[in-house]
Amino acid sequence: MTEKIALTPATHTAPPARFSHGVKKGNILQVAGQVGFLPAVAGQPPVTAGPTLREQTLQTFANVKAILEEGGASWDDVMMMRVYLTDVAHFAEMNEIYDAYFEEQGLTAPAAARTTVYVGLPKGLLIEIDALAVLG
Amino acid sequence: MTEKIALTPATHTAPPARFSHGVKKGNILQVAGQVGFLPAVAGQPPVTAGPTLREQTLQTFANVKAILEEGGASWDDVMMMRVYLTDVAHFAEMNEIYDAYFEEQGLTAPAAARTTVYVGLPKGLLIEIDALAVLG
Amino acid sequence: MTEKIALTPATHTAPPARFSHGVKKGNILQVAGQVGFLPAVAGQPPVTAGPTLREQTLQTFANVKAILEEGGASWDDVMMMRVYLTDVAHFAEMNEIYDAYFEEQGLTAPAAARTTVYVGLPKGLLIEIDALAVLG
Repeated sequence: MTEKIALTPATHTAPPARFSHGVKKGNILQVAGQVGFLPAVAGQPPVTAGPTLREQTLQTFANVKAILEEGGASWDDVMMMRVYLTDVAHFAEMNEIYDAYFEEQGLTAPAAARTTVYVGLPKGLLIEIDALAVLG
Repeated sequence: MTEKIALTPATHTAPPARFSHGVKKGNILQVAGQVGFLPAVAGQPPVTAGPTLREQTLQTFANVKAILEEGGASWDDVMMMRVYLTDVAHFAEMNEIYDAYFEEQGLTAPAAARTTVYVGLPKGLLIEIDALAVLG
Repeated sequence: MTEKIALTPATHTAPPARFSHGVKKGNILQVAGQVGFLPAVAGQPPVTAGPTLREQTLQTFANVKAILEEGGASWDDVMMMRVYLTDVAHFAEMNEIYDAYFEEQGLTAPAAARTTVYVGLPKGLLIEIDALAVLG
């Protein structure tokens, strides 16, 4: 029996429902859809990092990364990133931010696969990202 | 060679195309997108459980669960739930239904991760859910 | 340590950002969102196979298949296909194309699970597909 472990970074806001920010079982790690919420402040509702795509994307990356690290994984273990944007016009800018971020992270393994689609998100949110990782 | 097995509960309507409601290979079980269709009646087209989010969500859960069980899995094995809604205004109500349902199910492992996005669905459908499970 | 390998068919256009068209690690193979782009021509921007759903769907299948084969996998190994359409009115036609295509492919294992949702895609694109495979 392989144990299923919830990954709950101390910085994260409580999920709005009965789901985990991340789970790990055996060598599979799944990160739930993350958005650009700043680190949680006890007793206060979630606050986004800012109104811009850049602010929200970078905070979303930080939130995904915290969950990976909570599970003993890194960006190098990520197989798939799902990027949800609200506006096709944001694609080019998101790609610039994406590339610069992963350049800085100094990956040693090939970049993850990715799908980007354009959906509705709660008011004020411009991006959501989830990730599937396979640990080494 | 690990065998890939189709998971086809007797209660399910025939898929509208050449795909499986669920598949299992080794310890990985994938549930296809499920909607609020009532158990199939031979020779009749699919019928939704009702027009409300509550009716459709609970039926969708039942349909996902039947596939998990067909594969020898349970909610405890689910790593990721993808919830597709058609309207951001349904988020709070879906979360209430979601929480009450999983409370009732008496999970013994941490809750799955989840991503919720807002998309288009065929007319009359308010919710679709798929799930990835890793068996123990 | 299991190596993570990028799957980059020679026919594929360069991704528009720092992601891989496919990755494989251990027995898990993930194909990034593919669209109906024709085989790449050096120095030229991507060109879609045509304006119709049929042309784009068949080219998208070819692009997914090339990545699977680059990783030593086949359609039989695919557990999940995610199909993103832009218009609910395309569902029936996509299913016809889907069924005929997989009929021709002569699968020996059960068909993959599938989720189809309706989202926004970049201008001119009618379909995007990604896939998760578990190798044998």
